[in-house]
Amino acid sequence: MTLPRTGIGIDVHAWAPEGDDRTLWLGCVSWPGERGILGHSDGDVAAHAACNALLSAAGLGDLGAIFGTDRPELAGASGAQLLGHVRSLLDADGWTIGNVALQVVARRPRIGPRRAEMEAAMSAALGGAAVSLAAATTDGLGFVGRTEGLAGFATALVARV
Amino acid sequence: MTLPRTGIGIDVHAWAPEGDDRTLWLGCVSWPGERGILGHSDGDVAAHAACNALLSAAGLGDLGAIFGTDRPELAGASGAQLLGHVRSLLDADGWTIGNVALQVVARRPRIGPRRAEMEAAMSAALGGAAVSLAAATTDGLGFVGRTEGLAGFATALVARV
Amino acid sequence: MTLPRTGIGIDVHAWAPEGDDRTLWLGCVSWPGERGILGHSDGDVAAHAACNALLSAAGLGDLGAIFGTDRPELAGASGAQLLGHVRSLLDADGWTIGNVALQVVARRPRIGPRRAEMEAAMSAALGGAAVSLAAATTDGLGFVGRTEGLAGFATALVARV
Repeated sequence: MTLPRTGIGIDVHAWAPEGDDRTLWLGCVSWPGERGILGHSDGDVAAHAACNALLSAAGLGDLGAIFGTDRPELAGASGAQLLGHVRSLLDADGWTIGNVALQVVARRPRIGPRRAEMEAAMSAALGGAAVSLAAATTDGLGFVGRTEGLAGFATALVARV
Repeated sequence: MTLPRTGIGIDVHAWAPEGDDRTLWLGCVSWPGERGILGHSDGDVAAHAACNALLSAAGLGDLGAIFGTDRPELAGASGAQLLGHVRSLLDADGWTIGNVALQVVARRPRIGPRRAEMEAAMSAALGGAAVSLAAATTDGLGFVGRTEGLAGFATALVARV
Repeated sequence: MTLPRTGIGIDVHAWAPEGDDRTLWLGCVSWPGERGILGHSDGDVAAHAACNALLSAAGLGDLGAIFGTDRPELAGASGAQLLGHVRSLLDADGWTIGNVALQVVARRPRIGPRRAEMEAAMSAALGGAAVSLAAATTDGLGFVGRTEGLAGFATALVARV
C-alpha cells in the first residue's frame, strides 16, 4: 500500500488598526463590519493555513515560496484564488486531496453561525475536497487574547491514488 | 481506496489564581496539589483538544458548537464525558477512530511519570482507541512560559472502514 | 485495513543572547552568522519537533522522556543524531515512516533558499523518509515576533505495513 501523506500549515496575521476600512476575509467569505487584517494579501489565515498544509503534505514548499511577498500581481490575491492555485499544483504533481482540517484561533469573528458557509467556500475553491473548520479562543491569553492578531492551524491528507 | 481523514484540535485555558481550590484535570486524570484551571468545564486541555481533533477529522464541527458555553447541564462536564460524547457522535456518523495524538504545552505538571495513566484514561473514554500524549515547555516564552495558561494540540485520524 | 497513525510534535526554544557565539542548527544544517539557540542540545526545533511527531504517531512517548534533560551524554546531541535514534526506536517497534511535515515559525533565518538542503538532511537522518519543511513568521506578534524564540510544529504519518 502506498501511504497517504499528512501535512501541517500555520498562518498568523495582525489585525488592522481600529478605524481601518479593510474588509475581513476569513475562510473565503467576507465579514462586513469586522475589523480587517494587515498584509499584502487578503490576510485570510484559514485559506493560507490550508494552502500551507496542502503544499506541506505534497512536499511542494510553502505559500511564501510560491507566491512571495514581492509579486505585485498577487497583491490582494484572495484566499480562494490561492487555494485554487495550490490545488492545480497538487493536481499537476499527481496528488489527490483527501481532506483539509482547520482550526482558527481568534477572539473574533464568531465562526459557528457561518461555519458551513466557510467550509463550502473553501471546498469549492479546492474542487470539492472535504474541508472542516473549527474555532477556538485563548481565554484572553497571548497575542490572540490581546486582540493583536489571529492564527490558523491546518492539517491535510493527500495521496497518489 | 477510501482515504482516512486527518483532523486538528487546539485548546487553551488560563490557570486559576494562586490559592484557588479547583482541582486540576488533565488527560482525564486529576492532579491533587496542582493549580487548577479557569472555565465552565474542568478545563482539561488535553481532552478538549482531542475532542476538537476528532470532530475536525470527521467534519462534525467543534466542541464549542456542540456543547456551547451556555448549556448549564455541561457546566463541569469532565473531559472523559466530553470524549465519550464525541465518540458517540463519530459512531453515529459511521467513523472509526484510528488514533489520537496529543501534545500538551505547559510549564506544569510534569507529565512523564503519569503519561501512561493519562493515555489509558483517555483511551478508555474513547472505547479503546489508541491515544498518545507528549509534553513540551516553551523555554519560559509566551503565555505558557509566564505561567498564565497552558495549551493542548491534537491530531487524529478517522476512517469509514 | 490497518489504518496508519498520525502524530503531532511541537518544540520551542529561546534565542541565545546577542553576542553569544553558539552556532544555529535548524533542520539538521548549520547557519553560520545566525544567532544560536539556548539549551542543552543544539536546539534544532525542526529536528526536535519531527522527533516528537514520530514518537507521537508511534505511541512511543516524547523526546523529553527518551532523552531527558539530565543525560549528560546527550548534551549537545545533534538533531540528526536524535532523529536517527528515534528512527531506530520506530524500526524496533515495527513502524514504517510514511512522511514527516514541518513548519518552522520564526523571524529568522530565511528558510526558502535552503529548504531543499534542510529537507534532504532530515530525510537522510531518517533513512530516506519523505520530509517536507515550510516556514512562517507571525507578523511581529508574540514571542516569535519579539525575536525571543522560535517554534517548530510537525506532523507525521506512520504505519505497520
